Amino acid sequence: MSGVRQPARTVLITGAAGFLGSHLCDRFVAQGWHVIGVDNLLTGMPRNLAQMNGNGHFRFVRQDVAKPLAIDGYLDLVLHFASPASPRDYLRHPIATLEVDSVGTFNTLELADARRARYLLASTSEVYGDPQVHPQPETYWGHVNPTGPRSVYDEGKRFAEALTMAYHRSRGLDARIVRIFNTYGPRMRADDGRVIPQFITCALSGTPLPVQGDGRQTRSFCFVDDLVEGIYRLATYEGLAGEVVNLGNTEEVSLLELIESVASLIGRTPQLAYLPLPQDDPSRRRPDIRRAELALGWTPQVPLREGLRRTIDWFARAG
Amino acid sequence: MSGVRQPARTVLITGAAGFLGSHLCDRFVAQGWHVIGVDNLLTGMPRNLAQMNGNGHFRFVRQDVAKPLAIDGYLDLVLHFASPASPRDYLRHPIATLEVDSVGTFNTLELADARRARYLLASTSEVYGDPQVHPQPETYWGHVNPTGPRSVYDEGKRFAEALTMAYHRSRGLDARIVRIFNTYGPRMRADDGRVIPQFITCALSGTPLPVQGDGRQTRSFCFVDDLVEGIYRLATYEGLAGEVVNLGNTEEVSLLELIESVASLIGRTPQLAYLPLPQDDPSRRRPDIRRAELALGWTPQVPLREGLRRTIDWFARAG
Repeated sequence: MSGVRQPARTVLITGAAGFLGSHLCDRFVAQGWHVIGVDNLLTGMPRNLAQMNGNGHFRFVRQDVAKPLAIDGYLDLVLHFASPASPRDYLRHPIATLEVDSVGTFNTLELADARRARYLLASTSEVYGDPQVHPQPETYWGHVNPTGPRSVYDEGKRFAEALTMAYHRSRGLDARIVRIFNTYGPRMRADDGRVIPQFITCALSGTPLPVQGDGRQTRSFCFVDDLVEGIYRLATYEGLAGEVVNLGNTEEVSLLELIESVASLIGRTPQLAYLPLPQDDPSRRRPDIRRAELALGWTPQVPLREGLRRTIDWFARAG
Repeated sequence: MSGVRQPARTVLITGAAGFLGSHLCDRFVAQGWHVIGVDNLLTGMPRNLAQMNGNGHFRFVRQDVAKPLAIDGYLDLVLHFASPASPRDYLRHPIATLEVDSVGTFNTLELADARRARYLLASTSEVYGDPQVHPQPETYWGHVNPTGPRSVYDEGKRFAEALTMAYHRSRGLDARIVRIFNTYGPRMRADDGRVIPQFITCALSGTPLPVQGDGRQTRSFCFVDDLVEGIYRLATYEGLAGEVVNLGNTEEVSLLELIESVASLIGRTPQLAYLPLPQDDPSRRRPDIRRAELALGWTPQVPLREGLRRTIDWFARAG
């Protein structure tokens, strides 16, 4: 506006090679930011950042953020997205999950505090556990088993939230927390155990679709482009220090309805393989997104069928 | 029994200079153990271990257990009791509290795992938060605000529980968790903000007793000797790997009833100074101790009035 070119801002994104992290790298680079992407590649995939090869605005650092961080230079923003995030991944790496959500959160908060950078923590709807309130507003305290197998992720993220708020309150850090509900789209790993990549890859290959429980449990699924838009706003808008914001889609579908959509888009009638429900699996979860609407002017734009079509296209090409 | 003298076993106790830690040091030394007491003296007091001076069965290591631990020699047992534990202390040290409950728990679990020692985590009734179930059994998941000011302790301890269970499940560590309800007795700090030392010291000095809220909120108070007996059993009994056990007194009294008892034992009619209730203060909390009765044969033995008498005697001498 003033005619003076603004110097590019710099964001550090942990979990950069993950599903959400890599889409965030794309988005921040597209907006003219310098991006430092950090990942230890425990569950992230180098191919998610292949499009960054030779891009002068992007730098990759292979590092476990639970180990001491040595990142030089100016930082405006730190996005902490490193963590195994699917039940299959975090149950396979329970201690690494607890480490990145605690020590990794300490290290990235210390880095942000030292550089006077803004901080955004990727939290999760899993902090609500198996909720007794529907939909879940940010003020709901959750219903989580602290000693169950899933607690490695749920309690890891609740701890990360408590720590982030402690830095905000006691150090004055401009920290924000996003609670991410189920999200899907290109770059999910086919083997991460989550239902959408699993249903799509099974349907594409003609193998039976595994259904945990009776398939009537509902989920809300947000397309990744919508989520990234919300995160970008929460990270860049002014005046949101200390805010905790749900992002997700409010459209609730049962797993059986989801299977029907996938099958009709692919054009095959699927075989179903029923499996027992895992321990402490939430039967329903749906975000209350009024705070995101009010603070960010954000609502999801991509209907489930359209998002599924784009995701199926990507899996058909990537597979 | 066999006539062969058993070699002394060795226990490492973190938080050794604290209220509970120091009583545990006394108890384990009295039972013939070698005790290594670790404390950074952030909220612990050297005078709590003055009785150990010159005792060949006790060694003190001044160290922050959130920093790498270098402890030589054989260990049979690790008791992780380091943490600020009163609201006044943990609100004054929010980040140090989160650190000792996460990094300190990692470090002590790694130490126990490396030495094939048994592990006991000191957890707290605060993991139940402001409970919606009375009394609270170990199976209750709790009602905790993950982003409130008290979350530095509540979520710190819930994280420590999740981490302890992860080491038990994935490394086969013989780990146990004690959820400690309000406990009182000699060696509490007069300035730690908790009601019993506060009421006693105010009553002894004739200053007004601060009452948060209307004083009708109830608590259950366990005398420290009873608690130490329960912890000793949970730490030393065989076959309890992976157990989570409440320890506390089930006798519920209101703060106003407590004040009456203290006043009548001291023989003074107290002045009361009413204060607002702090954020997220639990209105009731009482342990369900059936698991401790069954697994440990344990019930509290010291009536409140008797425990208060002994505590008042100590404060009268120490003051």
